[in-house]
Amino acid sequence: MSEKGAVTVARTVLQQCLRATLQVRPAEEDSEAQFVQIERGMVIYICFFKGATDDILPKMVSSLLNLRLCESDSGKMVSVAELPGSLLIVPQATLGGKCKGRAMQYHNNISKEDGLRLYGAFVSLCERELTAAAVTVKHGTYGNRQVLKLDTNGPYTHLMEF
Amino acid sequence: MSEKGAVTVARTVLQQCLRATLQVRPAEEDSEAQFVQIERGMVIYICFFKGATDDILPKMVSSLLNLRLCESDSGKMVSVAELPGSLLIVPQATLGGKCKGRAMQYHNNISKEDGLRLYGAFVSLCERELTAAAVTVKHGTYGNRQVLKLDTNGPYTHLMEF
Repeated sequence: MSEKGAVTVARTVLQQCLRATLQVRPAEEDSEAQFVQIERGMVIYICFFKGATDDILPKMVSSLLNLRLCESDSGKMVSVAELPGSLLIVPQATLGGKCKGRAMQYHNNISKEDGLRLYGAFVSLCERELTAAAVTVKHGTYGNRQVLKLDTNGPYTHLMEF
Repeated sequence: MSEKGAVTVARTVLQQCLRATLQVRPAEEDSEAQFVQIERGMVIYICFFKGATDDILPKMVSSLLNLRLCESDSGKMVSVAELPGSLLIVPQATLGGKCKGRAMQYHNNISKEDGLRLYGAFVSLCERELTAAAVTVKHGTYGNRQVLKLDTNGPYTHLMEF
């Protein structure tokens, strides 16, 4: 969680799943839609705000991947690496929304270019951290519509801000 | 969104769905699990914090039900009432979590008794508001594990705090 008074530069929502399927390429005239899928593990929805830089990524990744949010077979809470489970990372710019009247505005979101770069670096860092832990990392395509199916034994939704 | 400096008394996460199925009673020895289901519409995950009272509910309900977060057939963004869609309300105490080290703590969550009462009142108010709009309202059982399946055309996840 962000400290009181500190500026929030990234917002994540975490959900646990038994299976999650995400479209990574929409169907086109000559090609079918493409999907990635994970089994038991964690879904990270992520959004960066203006002011976010690469400096924040190691702390984010270390914090998110080591949180004990996953339920092991014995009912003990463990991290996704300890489960071992899978990880699905979903870019979700809507998380930066602030309501004004009945509409949502996204003025505080990072630029598309910087967001794409940070998202890519975040995914790479997660992959690197989890290589040794036999954790599969899948991720959505930045800027796409995140067509998602989620099957849970309780999403156990958490908010983590940085 | 809560004003700067104001105390947050409720946290909600909103996701759009094509279909959502939620367990409202787990299986027991002599009975099968029971589920509720909505088709196209919105899922509200909700958590109350210490200090929340009934006073906040009308503003919350009015704000959440009138936000233009749902995509109509024509691609226009409309409220769940205007869609018209369905609404699934999911109690989600985990949303009140604050990380301490690798664990989540929920010290700021409202007491179970007060949370149950506010959750019930929130559901009733949503039902009352949406009766005229041909919107189906379904909801989870407070205190249960929220076994959820979600099928989306983009969850379009938003955070709203009050």
